[in-house]
Amino acid sequence: MTYRAPVSDMLATMRHVAGLDRLIADGLAPELEGGVAEAVLDEAAKFATDVIAPLNRVGDLNGSKLKDGAVTTPPGWKEAYKAWAEAGWNALPAPEAYGGQGLPTLLQSACIEMWNSAAFAFALGPLLTVGAIEALYAHGSDHLKETYLAKLVSGEWMGTMNLTEPQAGSDLNALRSKAERQPDGTYRITGQKIFITYGEHDLTENIVHLVLARLPDAPPGTRGISLFLVPKYLVNADGSLGAHNDLRCSGIEHKLGIHASPTCSMAFGDKGGAIGWLIGEENRGLACMFTMMNNARLNVALQGVAIAERAYQQALAFAHERKQGATLDAPKGAPMSPIIVHPDVRRMLMDMRAKTQGARAISYQVAEALDRSHRETDEVRRKAASERAAILTPIAKAYATDIGIDVASTGVQVHGGMGFVEETGAAQHLRDARIAAIYEGTNGIQAIDLVTRKLPLSGGEAVKALIAEMRGIVGEVERANNPGFGHAATRLGAAVDALERATQWMLATLGTSQADALAGATPYLKLFALAQGGTGLAKKALATRSEAEGTGDLATARFYAEYIATEAPALELTVTEGAGAIADAAAVFAA
Amino acid sequence: MTYRAPVSDMLATMRHVAGLDRLIADGLAPELEGGVAEAVLDEAAKFATDVIAPLNRVGDLNGSKLKDGAVTTPPGWKEAYKAWAEAGWNALPAPEAYGGQGLPTLLQSACIEMWNSAAFAFALGPLLTVGAIEALYAHGSDHLKETYLAKLVSGEWMGTMNLTEPQAGSDLNALRSKAERQPDGTYRITGQKIFITYGEHDLTENIVHLVLARLPDAPPGTRGISLFLVPKYLVNADGSLGAHNDLRCSGIEHKLGIHASPTCSMAFGDKGGAIGWLIGEENRGLACMFTMMNNARLNVALQGVAIAERAYQQALAFAHERKQGATLDAPKGAPMSPIIVHPDVRRMLMDMRAKTQGARAISYQVAEALDRSHRETDEVRRKAASERAAILTPIAKAYATDIGIDVASTGVQVHGGMGFVEETGAAQHLRDARIAAIYEGTNGIQAIDLVTRKLPLSGGEAVKALIAEMRGIVGEVERANNPGFGHAATRLGAAVDALERATQWMLATLGTSQADALAGATPYLKLFALAQGGTGLAKKALATRSEAEGTGDLATARFYAEYIATEAPALELTVTEGAGAIADAAAVFAA
Repeated sequence: MTYRAPVSDMLATMRHVAGLDRLIADGLAPELEGGVAEAVLDEAAKFATDVIAPLNRVGDLNGSKLKDGAVTTPPGWKEAYKAWAEAGWNALPAPEAYGGQGLPTLLQSACIEMWNSAAFAFALGPLLTVGAIEALYAHGSDHLKETYLAKLVSGEWMGTMNLTEPQAGSDLNALRSKAERQPDGTYRITGQKIFITYGEHDLTENIVHLVLARLPDAPPGTRGISLFLVPKYLVNADGSLGAHNDLRCSGIEHKLGIHASPTCSMAFGDKGGAIGWLIGEENRGLACMFTMMNNARLNVALQGVAIAERAYQQALAFAHERKQGATLDAPKGAPMSPIIVHPDVRRMLMDMRAKTQGARAISYQVAEALDRSHRETDEVRRKAASERAAILTPIAKAYATDIGIDVASTGVQVHGGMGFVEETGAAQHLRDARIAAIYEGTNGIQAIDLVTRKLPLSGGEAVKALIAEMRGIVGEVERANNPGFGHAATRLGAAVDALERATQWMLATLGTSQADALAGATPYLKLFALAQGGTGLAKKALATRSEAEGTGDLATARFYAEYIATEAPALELTVTEGAGAIADAAAVFAA
Repeated sequence: MTYRAPVSDMLATMRHVAGLDRLIADGLAPELEGGVAEAVLDEAAKFATDVIAPLNRVGDLNGSKLKDGAVTTPPGWKEAYKAWAEAGWNALPAPEAYGGQGLPTLLQSACIEMWNSAAFAFALGPLLTVGAIEALYAHGSDHLKETYLAKLVSGEWMGTMNLTEPQAGSDLNALRSKAERQPDGTYRITGQKIFITYGEHDLTENIVHLVLARLPDAPPGTRGISLFLVPKYLVNADGSLGAHNDLRCSGIEHKLGIHASPTCSMAFGDKGGAIGWLIGEENRGLACMFTMMNNARLNVALQGVAIAERAYQQALAFAHERKQGATLDAPKGAPMSPIIVHPDVRRMLMDMRAKTQGARAISYQVAEALDRSHRETDEVRRKAASERAAILTPIAKAYATDIGIDVASTGVQVHGGMGFVEETGAAQHLRDARIAAIYEGTNGIQAIDLVTRKLPLSGGEAVKALIAEMRGIVGEVERANNPGFGHAATRLGAAVDALERATQWMLATLGTSQADALAGATPYLKLFALAQGGTGLAKKALATRSEAEGTGDLATARFYAEYIATEAPALELTVTEGAGAIADAAAVFAA
């Protein structure tokens, strides 16, 4: 079962939920006028199906392998990467000054979803390069930009992010890697990093590592961390590759999933120190990291959507083919029907479909807000868009990756016994999906970020604006008076009410008891996602219904409201009245 | 991280939730008087930790291997199995006439949970033997019983169940394997079976296959299926092993989890027909299967509880060890704390604990009801117990295996990046857990069974009795007036109300639209489980609180009520108002 990009739903979500039509109407995406988005997505879809999708199982079976410090990617991966970069896909969102196409994040997001649906472990590498380009473009010196950016944009070289150390994961305060100033303005980097995605591989000639480390006189904690560019091979003045830098891959992990993505332990400075160049200012490394944080988290959200879409397509195809049992109204002795006729199988598939499209709706909204935050000329509107992106980013990251696991697991279930057999491929999606809820800030960290840093933006007005927008959609659903919406208006209205009350509680409680607020952070994030996803699907259904193009959108919006968003009032209760149970847990775990 | 059996919670659940104390007081478990249950569990716990738990990772890494028709289990498995059987554990529940100990299912259930926590793939094999013993004991001829039962009971031989064929999984109507009568009263069996657990292995000298097949003149569908005993080696009159029967393992599956459990394709009759003996009557094979169905489904429920318990213990230990971040009230620059101090980590661990103990509560209640259904002398009480077991069995099977996956996945999350690395062991639990929701009747099949066959028992009175019992517990929680219960009385009351209304809707709708009823079957089962599990934990907390032994039970019951059972009203809405969305799905999937 191969992958076909859901171009039609992607476009409908971009246009009607994320607001691409309005972005173009506002003159903020002139390069997408005249159907350019459609054309780009069609090309990307073809590439994803023809070139990347066939890598997925090969990558899982073979994995990337480490031998004598060198990592070999699975058969065919190097060729596919080269073709992909040469076709210009790596350069899509990058700055034009360095050979990029500067296209909006919204369009790039749909493409990122496609690459990840086609082969998650393949698409992951270039996402790290995107992060490196962003940090370098925003904070790098002219020299560093001239030397590295064009080759990173073209995809000739790839980039990595070296943050984690054995004792420093979610808490970067504990970071120990060292950087010492040299007379020539460079630095000598020493330290051990773990969980470095694509830290070593054979896809490109050079690898540009971005590394967090401390200067000898740095203050303790996260205010004493600096960011360095540390290339695998030093680059000569003429751009050719010079000596191998003092860094190596000392091991790769044996993981549950994404076997083809080499997760490396990196040793810097075994022979005295790897040569590195400062990015941005000394001790301001974390600020540089935050530059790319929103985009990186959005990209991981898109991985959640992507794996869910792939799992849904595979389960749907299986349910159309596999015959077991007759329909309820079949005469005795009737032949078996495809299992898709059975109500519970339909329920599973609708659940997969609705969660996937709901997560897509939220994620693409983040992308549009990021575009607007960069492109709006009016300062007030820029700020509003920026805050909107800031609020929705942790929601997209945590919700989309949670449903990625959930949908992939349901996909296994639809397959029955065949789903547990690796040959079928359904199980791989579950294994691959599991990482996205962990990396780029665990989903628990996302919930804390939402509650403590994002809700208070503009004194709570930013989140209230989002809730008002949802309420407007609920009103439209009511007024549409379309029986196809079923109980959607009531359910979504209840979800938005629940979100509003829980938000008021959160804003009040943050000032009185942070522990109580944090106890409810994860259920609060989910509640937000249900309201945002449910209204997003309703908005799409309202738009495509009038265009008579979306027969499935109405049923999907209804299902989301009646089967998924129904949980919202329960989550409100947990948020507003559940802190005591977590306080009690202290005694349970003290023993 | 090894496994320690939670003997204290097992005993509390047996005594206060499942009602072991009452069973003994009623004179229905005389063999457990005087602390026998405690002594047996302590011994089992020791064996599970010392002998079986070390097999778990060895089994996962090595798997069982097929070569030239022979399956080799992982290093150490054969020796551990021999020690386990020789210690008498295989014989625990078996009839005394054949060397068993005839101990209650309730006690056996706690032991089964332990074996499966220690090593799921190891414990699975003997569960198949238990099924074979039950079918043979209930329906086998004296000759078959004399020849096979004692050796199956001692564990010298193991048993299997051969149901599934490529075209016949959930729907046994499509079964094609053939049996032909022979003049000597035996049968010749031919056919291909798949997904046969422990269909071939080196743990025992002989393997006793129970095989479903059709006679030439059998009626179509499930009323034309017969059950046969087909040994790997024929047995001579003196009990010694004779010729190899005409059957072989033609392949084993490469699976997501339980790598050490050989999942075999079996070929019967390549050389003309395997020799088989009829069990029970011709064309009544399915009835024989149903004899063991309740126990088998309970046992799979226990596997869900078991894997959840193991994952919880491992995550809890990790959260006590791993340091990241300081507590909220720590002064600046304070050292990092174990992550268990963080509210969201506590929430995850309480979620794992509460779901595990809730599923244990439901599963042990099934076991007690089965014991009572066999041991009550009063016909009315036997029937009530039998119906109680019948209703709770699909709930236990589906809910416990669903939370098994859920809890194992949260266990990975608690570990952060380390959880995705196979070496840690957390990921194996997720991989192993995934099968239990599929085999022994998928969880969707369980929901259909609950709604269509179990709810109507005694005209709906059986389910109403269960609901009345739950309502009694809610009343006790209210009257306890203990602030440690938090909002539990209100939340559990709402859950039971929701269940009662949804049950009335289900009973009414079954008569008017089966499709609508089936659309809500899975959310209805979950709703039932939340009410049953939540009141079960409350009952335990009420009992252990007064005994001053259960500091954790109150907090766990509260958490379940406030974080988990809160979803019940949402599920009610989905059940009673969600059928339209599933009907609409037909059009979505017609394309």
